[in-house]
Amino acid sequence: MASIKGFAEWLPEQQILQQEIIDNIRHSFELNGYAPLLTRSIELLEDLLNQGETDKEIYGVQRLSADSDTPSDWGLHYDLTVPFARYVSENRGKIVFPYRRYQIQQAWRGERPQMGRFREFIQADADVVNEGDLDLRFDAEVILMFSQVLSSLSVPKIKILVNNRKLLEGFYLGLGIENIVGVLRIVDKLPKIGEEEVARLLQESGLSSQQAQNCIGLTKIEAKDSAELKNISKFGVSHDMLDLGVRELGEVLDRVNLFAESGSVVAGLHIARGFDYYTGTVVESAFVDHPEVGSVCSGGRYDNLISTGSKPIPGVGLSIGVSRLLAYCFHLDLIETNRQSPAQVFIVVNSEEERTDSEKVAALLRDRDISAVVSDSSAAYGKQIKLAERLGIENVWFPNSDGSHEVKNLETREQIKADPTSWLL
Amino acid sequence: MASIKGFAEWLPEQQILQQEIIDNIRHSFELNGYAPLLTRSIELLEDLLNQGETDKEIYGVQRLSADSDTPSDWGLHYDLTVPFARYVSENRGKIVFPYRRYQIQQAWRGERPQMGRFREFIQADADVVNEGDLDLRFDAEVILMFSQVLSSLSVPKIKILVNNRKLLEGFYLGLGIENIVGVLRIVDKLPKIGEEEVARLLQESGLSSQQAQNCIGLTKIEAKDSAELKNISKFGVSHDMLDLGVRELGEVLDRVNLFAESGSVVAGLHIARGFDYYTGTVVESAFVDHPEVGSVCSGGRYDNLISTGSKPIPGVGLSIGVSRLLAYCFHLDLIETNRQSPAQVFIVVNSEEERTDSEKVAALLRDRDISAVVSDSSAAYGKQIKLAERLGIENVWFPNSDGSHEVKNLETREQIKADPTSWLL
Repeated sequence: MASIKGFAEWLPEQQILQQEIIDNIRHSFELNGYAPLLTRSIELLEDLLNQGETDKEIYGVQRLSADSDTPSDWGLHYDLTVPFARYVSENRGKIVFPYRRYQIQQAWRGERPQMGRFREFIQADADVVNEGDLDLRFDAEVILMFSQVLSSLSVPKIKILVNNRKLLEGFYLGLGIENIVGVLRIVDKLPKIGEEEVARLLQESGLSSQQAQNCIGLTKIEAKDSAELKNISKFGVSHDMLDLGVRELGEVLDRVNLFAESGSVVAGLHIARGFDYYTGTVVESAFVDHPEVGSVCSGGRYDNLISTGSKPIPGVGLSIGVSRLLAYCFHLDLIETNRQSPAQVFIVVNSEEERTDSEKVAALLRDRDISAVVSDSSAAYGKQIKLAERLGIENVWFPNSDGSHEVKNLETREQIKADPTSWLL
Repeated sequence: MASIKGFAEWLPEQQILQQEIIDNIRHSFELNGYAPLLTRSIELLEDLLNQGETDKEIYGVQRLSADSDTPSDWGLHYDLTVPFARYVSENRGKIVFPYRRYQIQQAWRGERPQMGRFREFIQADADVVNEGDLDLRFDAEVILMFSQVLSSLSVPKIKILVNNRKLLEGFYLGLGIENIVGVLRIVDKLPKIGEEEVARLLQESGLSSQQAQNCIGLTKIEAKDSAELKNISKFGVSHDMLDLGVRELGEVLDRVNLFAESGSVVAGLHIARGFDYYTGTVVESAFVDHPEVGSVCSGGRYDNLISTGSKPIPGVGLSIGVSRLLAYCFHLDLIETNRQSPAQVFIVVNSEEERTDSEKVAALLRDRDISAVVSDSSAAYGKQIKLAERLGIENVWFPNSDGSHEVKNLETREQIKADPTSWLL
């Protein structure tokens, strides 16, 4: 058996942490009324390719025994937005709108493996879609929710950065630029390749030096609300779409600021996002104290992705790259892992003859929702306690031969009398 | 966009139920000290094919852009036992043994779609493995745990049936049968094709009429403990391996009976299980009142699956077919689905100007761990209540203009004064 590159498979203690993070994310989503969804992992290739993703990134799926002359038309999904859009299209008659859903699943991309980039990874998405119109307040709702989700996780502080595609496009149109998509793609690389290189590429693509400088200048504007966004006017650029974008971004920020912690959600005017389907709000994130780590939470608004039926179904949603987040946290030692077992209590066995007594204690504790595991060994106490320590279980339970019980906390080293029908953690 | 056959993709209200069932299963696993594990979905084909699975059932995975002359050596896993075995092999130096883990993930098989059989399905596995020996009490531990897990779910009563490969093999050897595997495979079909057909196939495979009748007779023995298993002696068959199998099965049943509800775990001497890697205990399940539904929980002991390293790592574990269980429950109307939203409270909006007041109520409730969603509409109360009903949200909250609040329970129709900082569900 051999390992394969590009797949995140964590060690037992990291697995427990991954599960805790997923549980925390889910809990926040459900507190906000987002409903669970699991879609199939396999989509028709045409549905995957339709969304502008290059085929290089897609994994095809085919039965081994199938006629090899018949190419398969199945592929593994590369994100959770495209399957969600397909699910909504297929079930629109049975869904109550606005439909808030979250989805925590694996996705696959044929990427070259590198730090934080996997071929199979877990994403945690939450989106809201509506039949007809989807008010801009939903953009604020999901951004606020993710901001709160991220701050609830036991990871370093993460800031959410918001931009608007209309703002960028309007600004470029106002500058007289025609190749909007090309410029978007170059500017999007700014955090990676730096100002000078972006300026060079922009001019290479046909922009004047002045146009290029304005494009870069725009990304430097800092703003946390609609008032501060007014600074964009200093460039003297004017276009209806720019005005619309500024208004939308300002409204989203102002709505978020009503409830968000100050500074946790701000404008990030360099953000464009890779996927073609975004039409307005676009979002990325950054670790406040670890700028070298890329975005672990991103997404935006897509007004035209779900296009079947008579009415449009616009949507907005974000996604946390769980595997990516964990990879950085483990790599940079940003979180602590210290247990291999979810059990809260480790029950000592006095002798094999008395094993059932220990099993009865376990049953009593579990009845009271306390996680317990019985020692595999009936060796000397010291050896059994060692096993509990290695598993990272905090409490060791001793059923005494006279029917009394004691429990020792391995953290505080305190040992007290206890009753399995009433003892509290 | 088109749908694909053989994939379970539930409607929003069914998705909530699926999530509840997965959460209940997980909770029971963790109460018993089983740790979470997620392995990659993709394995090397050689590791998948090694385990005796026919290649017809395996899906290969290949990058679309890859050179089509290079066949891929990747496949999607068809169960969670083989990936678990590989994970333990790879990480044995970092794992604390005995290692109890649970794993709830999708798996894929190239099956012809039919009721309860999907090409992609969710399984919920729990196994325990140990370096060196794995005492028979672990077989009892996992069986007892799954019995309790199944009875904790809001599905009709399910009985667990236990057998032992050594008992079957020893019985056949004692009868002078040589083609053990062939006979196992035929007997395993008994619930599907009936006695007469099994007898015919057995004789066709070379057994005498008397041998065939004994093979069928054995499957009819009913036993809930070691005492009742003694009835096997009436066949006058004698073999050391038979004795060993009877002893093992008896010990497992007796240990389980110490804690299990009477009749919830019994011997099922017709059970052989398809996978080759089982070496002792084998398990299946049956709905007590729906015998037409096949097994939704099965597994067994595998002493030789994990074979790298100097010491063997025997294991025992079971698996609940979550998708299969849900498919039958939905199809036979065995469970009720009635909500599309996980929210507990739906907050009415008096007017768009007062929307922030409603959002503040939602924030206060969420701070107190109560799931809340704000109405998208600010239309007449009747319309908003209708939306809450369609989402299946039980409580409707009215923020009054004078700063007081009322909440109506749509089930009881009771409406009371309430304070968002103290109201309890």
